[in-house]
Amino acid sequence: MAKIRIGIIGYGNIGRAAEWAVEQNGDMDLGVILTRRDPGKIKPRKTGVAVDSLDRAGAYADRIDVAILCGGSATDLPEQGPVLAALFNTVDSYDTHAKIPDYFREVNRAALKAGKTAVISTGWDPGLFSLLRVIEESVLPSGKAYTFWGPGVSQGHSDAIRRVPGVRDGRQYTIPIEKAVERVRSGEGPELATREKHLRDCYVVAEEGADLERIRRDIQTMPHYFSDYNTQVTFVSREEMDEKHGHMPHGGFVMRTGQTADGTGHAVEFSLRLESNPAFTASVLLAYARAAFRLNGEGVTGAKTVFDIAPAYLSPRSAEELRKEML
Amino acid sequence: MAKIRIGIIGYGNIGRAAEWAVEQNGDMDLGVILTRRDPGKIKPRKTGVAVDSLDRAGAYADRIDVAILCGGSATDLPEQGPVLAALFNTVDSYDTHAKIPDYFREVNRAALKAGKTAVISTGWDPGLFSLLRVIEESVLPSGKAYTFWGPGVSQGHSDAIRRVPGVRDGRQYTIPIEKAVERVRSGEGPELATREKHLRDCYVVAEEGADLERIRRDIQTMPHYFSDYNTQVTFVSREEMDEKHGHMPHGGFVMRTGQTADGTGHAVEFSLRLESNPAFTASVLLAYARAAFRLNGEGVTGAKTVFDIAPAYLSPRSAEELRKEML
Repeated sequence: MAKIRIGIIGYGNIGRAAEWAVEQNGDMDLGVILTRRDPGKIKPRKTGVAVDSLDRAGAYADRIDVAILCGGSATDLPEQGPVLAALFNTVDSYDTHAKIPDYFREVNRAALKAGKTAVISTGWDPGLFSLLRVIEESVLPSGKAYTFWGPGVSQGHSDAIRRVPGVRDGRQYTIPIEKAVERVRSGEGPELATREKHLRDCYVVAEEGADLERIRRDIQTMPHYFSDYNTQVTFVSREEMDEKHGHMPHGGFVMRTGQTADGTGHAVEFSLRLESNPAFTASVLLAYARAAFRLNGEGVTGAKTVFDIAPAYLSPRSAEELRKEML
Repeated sequence: MAKIRIGIIGYGNIGRAAEWAVEQNGDMDLGVILTRRDPGKIKPRKTGVAVDSLDRAGAYADRIDVAILCGGSATDLPEQGPVLAALFNTVDSYDTHAKIPDYFREVNRAALKAGKTAVISTGWDPGLFSLLRVIEESVLPSGKAYTFWGPGVSQGHSDAIRRVPGVRDGRQYTIPIEKAVERVRSGEGPELATREKHLRDCYVVAEEGADLERIRRDIQTMPHYFSDYNTQVTFVSREEMDEKHGHMPHGGFVMRTGQTADGTGHAVEFSLRLESNPAFTASVLLAYARAAFRLNGEGVTGAKTVFDIAPAYLSPRSAEELRKEML
């Protein structure tokens, strides 16, 4: 059977991870990497993979089955998502929660018009965590739902630190507060304030001569990002930052506790521990690329989310094999 | 909107739990309980619910949207599944793993012919655990998969104990071995023998004057059920059995650990802790009843498993609401 021809759009952390991830999926081949940078500066891991400018995406419309959109949600995807869904089946990890309905509408319109299938907002959250939130609520209607993130590096919060004047580099770890996790797992169903669930632990390389107390205060009082949390700020040297904080672990869990109508209690939990957030995210994107390809082959077009996709579409196994081996 | 009219087929542990569970699903109504026993002896929890003989199932074909088949896998479902899938949309928890492909074929044929939708082999295992095995494998192709059950009461093993001569009553707890669980969670990816994963802990009420050592030996050497495990047998009084071992807790977890191609390690885990196995199983069956009803409304007929059903079908929320609130 012909392999699924993958295109990678954007060659940052996720794009590079997607390039690796294709190698673990025997039913896929990497055809092209499209970038806004100078294509000549990118050397793919395997020979035979084209590298080209994103402006020339149209030239690949018939040579790629699914495009993995690896850009960011702030500016890249709102522009690229609808444009590329008119050329390719696509998968992306759009994660600006408040704007998902708008993004869905734009991508859906483009994909329907072109007869393409676009899976939006997948990865692990949004993505697998979303999926489990819905499954857990559906099978345990009366209960309370919790999502905890970390321990792990938040890119968004690290970027926010780096925008503070006097900061040369910053890294933020989101850390679930153990006491809250214990209460949730006990099944007591606590109401938890934002501050009670997660701690924000920041490591900062300051510019020489900068006012460290002012930087600390600027971070701890920053609205949306830090002011609703207990936030620790530790100043470190450039060397210590490079040595100890160069990795991108993440994870967390989605849990629901509740009772069935007979009064018995139940707990359902889905958890992830990831050494590399982009590597795992890319791996999830590829499973959904398989789904996008197959759905399109069945004539199911438009924008889809993890909620719309039956699990069998994610697996390279046949329906018969799934029933025989995995049920 | 009209509610989904539910029929309960069989009034044992699961059937009674399904009756409770309907009350937690605002979009469902219980229409009838069909039984092989004397219908006059069953008093439903709510007025307005019919109770009738299973022989008269045909009379309810137009009055029920989905039938929840609550019989056992050994003898009830192989006979009832195909017959009832010709009358109703159905959901069942058929769990004889080796015979699932045959059962699927029989039910599929009957359901397709009648234009009905039959979700087979759902609940938590097979069911949610199966679903997570497939999702975990799809998003982490290179890795090792583990399923642990318990701590919890196994009905099948309890029944096996009760068939030993000299035994008046028996209860078997399946207990995951902590050391194995720790090794799995550490990500080392161990190869584990059956005996290393679970302990079988049995409580037995013996007949007066019975040879306790012979009973212990008969249990511990019983093929398929106990001989591959370390099995503990404790003799207890009738009173102690009733007092301490009358509940049906269960649970367990499905885990996959592995590496993405960049060499970073990841762990994905789905776990359940259930105070009542039948109560939670029934609750899962009802979520899949909602899916069966909706799929049938869209003209998707035949036998389906958890692998074939997009998660949105399980939820009473609309697609728009899911995207807005749950993604």
